Amino acid sequence: MNIGIIGLGLIGGSMALASKKYTVGCRCYGRDINPTHIKQAIALGIIEEELTDVNLPHMDVVILAVPVDIAIDLAVPLLDIINDNALLIDVGSTKGSICERVALHPKRNQFLATHPIAGTEFSGPSAAYAELFLGQTQILCETSLSRPDLMEWAIQWFRSMSMRIKEMDPKEHDQHIAYVSHLSHVSSFMLGKTVMEKEKDEHAIFDMAGSGFASTVRLAKSSPSMWTPIFKQNRENLLEVLTEYIENLSAFKNDLEQHDYNKLYQTMLETNAIRAILAGINQNNTKNNN
Amino acid sequence: MNIGIIGLGLIGGSMALASKKYTVGCRCYGRDINPTHIKQAIALGIIEEELTDVNLPHMDVVILAVPVDIAIDLAVPLLDIINDNALLIDVGSTKGSICERVALHPKRNQFLATHPIAGTEFSGPSAAYAELFLGQTQILCETSLSRPDLMEWAIQWFRSMSMRIKEMDPKEHDQHIAYVSHLSHVSSFMLGKTVMEKEKDEHAIFDMAGSGFASTVRLAKSSPSMWTPIFKQNRENLLEVLTEYIENLSAFKNDLEQHDYNKLYQTMLETNAIRAILAGINQNNTKNNN
Repeated sequence: MNIGIIGLGLIGGSMALASKKYTVGCRCYGRDINPTHIKQAIALGIIEEELTDVNLPHMDVVILAVPVDIAIDLAVPLLDIINDNALLIDVGSTKGSICERVALHPKRNQFLATHPIAGTEFSGPSAAYAELFLGQTQILCETSLSRPDLMEWAIQWFRSMSMRIKEMDPKEHDQHIAYVSHLSHVSSFMLGKTVMEKEKDEHAIFDMAGSGFASTVRLAKSSPSMWTPIFKQNRENLLEVLTEYIENLSAFKNDLEQHDYNKLYQTMLETNAIRAILAGINQNNTKNNN
Repeated sequence: MNIGIIGLGLIGGSMALASKKYTVGCRCYGRDINPTHIKQAIALGIIEEELTDVNLPHMDVVILAVPVDIAIDLAVPLLDIINDNALLIDVGSTKGSICERVALHPKRNQFLATHPIAGTEFSGPSAAYAELFLGQTQILCETSLSRPDLMEWAIQWFRSMSMRIKEMDPKEHDQHIAYVSHLSHVSSFMLGKTVMEKEKDEHAIFDMAGSGFASTVRLAKSSPSMWTPIFKQNRENLLEVLTEYIENLSAFKNDLEQHDYNKLYQTMLETNAIRAILAGINQNNTKNNN
């Protein structure tokens, strides 16, 4: 089984490592816009050799693990070039745009749109590890449009990495993921920005900030190259939920201005219901993931 | 050494446990508004017996570890009742109000305002553990107003728990802590509220949210009884930084509306500077803390 990985970052690299750990006879070929990543990936045992235009048609599976703007540009030319029994799998954080882009391609049934709900705030080949997907959700979109034999193989392959499979409409995916992932990233980035602007004394941050702060701004370490195109592709859903977030913060601010402490108390008490939800998430997650 | 603990929650309980673990000959007496907490604290070995009006004057140290609104109401009557060689230590998250409240008390030099930068999102006696303060910062305010012999003892006691001592003006404390702690809590509470309002399907949250979401909303599990009075006492500083946070979010939203992706990219790239700051915080923190 030849597996081509395009984009040797956290997700692509971990897919390669997980393939080799959990499936017998996998050989991984990799490509990356950064030549250092290719060397690193070979040195780390993530890939066996470079993925080239010559060996690409010999791949049984090609994983597209690049920023989502590049993914939609590469999807069609990759479908053109892969052999007639190969499967192209995309793993980006938005699903609507890429499903639209390949919709009319003659090899549409050799494409599978997925979103592994896994990741950390770190990037590059050195961040990859085989256990990243253990117990995590793998979202599959438009499965009825993919060739049944290829789908069946893909599902077995994801299950071999201990992923939990969930099917979802691409538009629904993009809406839900704006709520539970994209908004968290904006919230965290802007919190980091605000604190760095207000607090000129870095020592005060070191001395006074605990893991409460560290936890809320952790995602502000995320890669802008990865997140800018995600926000662009999921612009409408993100704008909707971001508007509501700003409204909630403004209402909180207004209650504080008006000294309405009963209201603040009540709002926080109701929000404590998140405990049960987080308990469920923590039960699902065995490792850090986005 | 008799230690009285008023408020048998995470901080009070952990102070009791740390005293007994790291200082020879400490005996702890506890009081709590919740009778169950007293029973629990005895059962868990946090305190040896209940703190009463009868034994309170025999305490060498009294720790005031209750919500900050209750702390400012209790500080003066406690100073009235403690013996002439005892030290009253407050451990709340705001320092200005309590320092003002005791300023003119004849026993002002038997009071020490502190803020241990430690905690988790959990509360009650069962959340307490002796190692909570290990390597964490202990902020001391207006040390020159406390009796030198009592101060010296207190510093040794905090050092025995492996805390790093830092002196700070109460007003400065309240300003900095609004940036690096109080704002994070508001951000997290409102994020939790927004997602729960938008996402009516709890299963979608379970399936699609990863630890990125869990990490940014963790503080929304915090106790409203503890945080309402903190926000009240630190209202002005919090309003200032909350206004700036809302402005930054609105600017982000505006850039997204205007399709100004270069600006979004640049803003996130600059905010990545938080990495170095967080690396410093993580070096300081060995356990979860607020």
